[in-house]
Amino acid sequence: MNSSSAVTLYPLGGLGEIGLNCMALVSGDSMIVIDCGLMFPDDSLFGIDVVIPRFDFILQNRDKLKGIILTHGHEDHIGALPWLMRSCDAPLYGSKFTLALAGKKLEEHNLKEFTRCEPVVAGDVLTLGAFRVTFFPVCHSIVHGFALGIETPAGRIVHTGDFKIDRNPLDGHATDLPAIKAFAAPGAMLLLSDSTNAEREGFALTEREIKAALGDIFADATGRIVVTLFSSHIQRMQEIFDLAEATGRKVAVSGKSLFTNIEIARNLGLLRVPPGTEASLDELPGLPDHQVVLLVTGSQGEPLSALSRLAYGEHRQVRIQKGDTVLLSSRFIPGNIRAITKLINRLYKLGAEVLYERVQAIHASGHAHAEELRLMLKTVAPKFFIPVHGEYRHLVKHSRIAVSCGVAPERALVIEDGQPVTFSGGLIRLEDTIPVEHIYVDGKGVGDVGVTVLKERQLLAGEGLVIVVMVVDEKSGELTFGPNILSKGFVFEQHYSHVLEDAKCIVLDIFENVPPGQSDLLKERIRSALRRFFRKILERDPVVVPLVITL
Amino acid sequence: MNSSSAVTLYPLGGLGEIGLNCMALVSGDSMIVIDCGLMFPDDSLFGIDVVIPRFDFILQNRDKLKGIILTHGHEDHIGALPWLMRSCDAPLYGSKFTLALAGKKLEEHNLKEFTRCEPVVAGDVLTLGAFRVTFFPVCHSIVHGFALGIETPAGRIVHTGDFKIDRNPLDGHATDLPAIKAFAAPGAMLLLSDSTNAEREGFALTEREIKAALGDIFADATGRIVVTLFSSHIQRMQEIFDLAEATGRKVAVSGKSLFTNIEIARNLGLLRVPPGTEASLDELPGLPDHQVVLLVTGSQGEPLSALSRLAYGEHRQVRIQKGDTVLLSSRFIPGNIRAITKLINRLYKLGAEVLYERVQAIHASGHAHAEELRLMLKTVAPKFFIPVHGEYRHLVKHSRIAVSCGVAPERALVIEDGQPVTFSGGLIRLEDTIPVEHIYVDGKGVGDVGVTVLKERQLLAGEGLVIVVMVVDEKSGELTFGPNILSKGFVFEQHYSHVLEDAKCIVLDIFENVPPGQSDLLKERIRSALRRFFRKILERDPVVVPLVITL
Repeated sequence: MNSSSAVTLYPLGGLGEIGLNCMALVSGDSMIVIDCGLMFPDDSLFGIDVVIPRFDFILQNRDKLKGIILTHGHEDHIGALPWLMRSCDAPLYGSKFTLALAGKKLEEHNLKEFTRCEPVVAGDVLTLGAFRVTFFPVCHSIVHGFALGIETPAGRIVHTGDFKIDRNPLDGHATDLPAIKAFAAPGAMLLLSDSTNAEREGFALTEREIKAALGDIFADATGRIVVTLFSSHIQRMQEIFDLAEATGRKVAVSGKSLFTNIEIARNLGLLRVPPGTEASLDELPGLPDHQVVLLVTGSQGEPLSALSRLAYGEHRQVRIQKGDTVLLSSRFIPGNIRAITKLINRLYKLGAEVLYERVQAIHASGHAHAEELRLMLKTVAPKFFIPVHGEYRHLVKHSRIAVSCGVAPERALVIEDGQPVTFSGGLIRLEDTIPVEHIYVDGKGVGDVGVTVLKERQLLAGEGLVIVVMVVDEKSGELTFGPNILSKGFVFEQHYSHVLEDAKCIVLDIFENVPPGQSDLLKERIRSALRRFFRKILERDPVVVPLVITL
Repeated sequence: MNSSSAVTLYPLGGLGEIGLNCMALVSGDSMIVIDCGLMFPDDSLFGIDVVIPRFDFILQNRDKLKGIILTHGHEDHIGALPWLMRSCDAPLYGSKFTLALAGKKLEEHNLKEFTRCEPVVAGDVLTLGAFRVTFFPVCHSIVHGFALGIETPAGRIVHTGDFKIDRNPLDGHATDLPAIKAFAAPGAMLLLSDSTNAEREGFALTEREIKAALGDIFADATGRIVVTLFSSHIQRMQEIFDLAEATGRKVAVSGKSLFTNIEIARNLGLLRVPPGTEASLDELPGLPDHQVVLLVTGSQGEPLSALSRLAYGEHRQVRIQKGDTVLLSSRFIPGNIRAITKLINRLYKLGAEVLYERVQAIHASGHAHAEELRLMLKTVAPKFFIPVHGEYRHLVKHSRIAVSCGVAPERALVIEDGQPVTFSGGLIRLEDTIPVEHIYVDGKGVGDVGVTVLKERQLLAGEGLVIVVMVVDEKSGELTFGPNILSKGFVFEQHYSHVLEDAKCIVLDIFENVPPGQSDLLKERIRSALRRFFRKILERDPVVVPLVITL
């Protein structure tokens, strides 16, 4: 594959999309994998639960695999592990918190006991075959994320993971630029850096600014405060607990993923719940409104989440009332905007005040903006640069930033998933591409729902379905049953009985004009005639399924 | 309904959603309707083409209807006309441009010749029964929009339509605040004002700023320039033609709606195409790149639009190439973000530079921001205030702005569609609500696709469908055909033949255990057993349709 002094990078996901982050590095007989993320499907992927990378390359080279390194615990970095780990027994490396989240996921798939989890802390150095990996703390919207310093036979690589650079961070949440600088000092061959916010100028808001904005709201609120946030955002939760303590409030939690993550974080000493700030949901009625904080799931408008149940008056213990302040301390993910704004409108109707990113600075992105990306580029001063974690446009913009920071234009590469690159003796070579099409997971099926099935679902979704069923006597060629017509998702049948009766007549007419025994021809004629008929009468084009049974 | 000195306002759409704007005003035996807009469906409305208001109230009071006033020509103000005008013969009033757009729409539905269109110009005063309506020019993202001054027996009403206040407008595009002020001078009873941007602080960008930003891009571009924009935004098109003239470029147009609207605007003298700036698509190959502007449809990523065809290499006359600059001079509507960003990524891959609102100030909203809303409130100084054109949250925010501008809190009402309000002798009364549920249009069907059909489509979309068909001999109770199983959008059948075989065995087993003649019981058992089976084996829950034919 490559000589022992070369290293080849195989991007399997995340270079060309947001999500699905996964990359393999190979040198001689050693392979490491960095991250193993999923992507949530867009609306065109009817019924698909999650999208995962194609793992063929990793599995074909399983014998070389020394370990899987997880930079942090977000779904787009660990979410596809259950589908890789069912065919793979390499150890997982990451922070305790990351591994706890990964472990929970593997447990749900009954894979945890078969997986070796090796926790690392900042500053640790691991030797994995031909690779030596150093872990650097980074600031991100989840605690205990790492950037990686990777010593390879071809030179030093820095992989930022997901990061931002908070210039004035709250305790224990800094990106360790000096350590990264020291690692890169002998000369960094390559920087792989997070491109998510490459289009945003300046610096991301800092958690200190968010905490101050939240603090103002806590200081002013006279009623209950309801907060929703990403359930892995432990640092933000800490701010909420601290503000609750400062303003004499108690925090009650509603929503399973919050419960689980809070428990994990507390057990690892990552979340300090100040004494006297805890309350159960059942205690709430006994507390005055100005002593209540309710921390809830549902920042993306998920239908069964705690916030959704509150907004629709279906929460078992709590009713939203006039005087409540609801904070959405989270980003609106584009596909979820309509669901979220529906919730906001409903909360207003119930009398609550609702605050969200658009109207108040109560959320900060966890990803570096352009100026922070520049800082990282200047810290590492790499010879080569490959932007990761982004759509194509983000990668392009990030490579331009790299060039503006002194990377030679021919060394700032924009490559996509499936395009391997070999580094050797200070030179690079693009290898033949490898297959990396997205794999769709639907229930227990992995990769079995492809273009054909999705196309059928799309047609069914748009126009519904009409079934025509008839039984023909084989000997006489006479109709012994039907034609009967039934539909699903097509029209409200009671209102359209005349249309369906006309359709029957059309079918009968065709039947009389097709010679007996030619049932394929009969079905084809029925299908095309009914589609034509429904298009003309209703301007609709349902899926037509003719069932002709010959007995 | 009300006494002759009272007026009742019936909001039929747009108070509680963006789109669907429609309102009736009734006084004694006179009714006028203001706007008749549609709304585009969100993703949960499978197969629905458009959403329109329920017109029952208007049709029940058809005899009182003196006219339908169109404030401007956007779809959310005129788009539902074809469904109202098929049952209604009242005249339409609006600017020539608005009526031209409305007429095109009515023509497509073969209704144009039955509709009286009465053009008005700024300053015109119409007497419509008990109402006197004055038309004031407003600045908006379409030319020739109006605010309305309505004299009623209960007092003066100002309805802003959609508007912004450009403090330094390009020629002929100002909001006529002095005229509105003069109208309100004797005392305005009520202001109805556009709430779309009530959450945005400050002032909207002005067209002068947009034109300057576009001018910089035109000055710098050395290759071809491709521009997409809303196809009714004649003013923006004028800027493009002017800049083309100034920089020695010719403009070619691709896309039907642009062609039509440009023709309408030119015929009405609303768009000046400078001599020598026109080119046909076929002339483009003969022009040097730096002399080309291509104006195209597709700002929302619509699949068959000119921009889509360019991005996917399917445009007949033009190929995107390195050096091209593509400008999306338009807003990203939330439901379309993924489609638009896909196009942007593809255009980058083809080598183009792509500029859009997020990264460059090349689009301005047509709706007033908070400071502009204040200016309108201060200009009219109304006794009562009702925010219109917005989701509930926008209405709430706008009513707060009104209170901050001096409207008494109890007179700043937030009401929703279907809540009539009567004004009489300086007092108000909320009337009983009227039905205003949204009407779904699917092909030629209006209102026939309801919750049941949509639910079926949703189920079909998510998990597909399984049909079980069998024929039973009535006399012997024996199976004479089947069970056969076929599916649509469920699984790729070749890969799952074993699952479908197992499903057949389950059906046979049930058949043997249900007494002959009980075909409903048989069907129910089949349905529930198969759903259980598929959930267990595949974690999928398709729609199961058992067809049991007894012969």
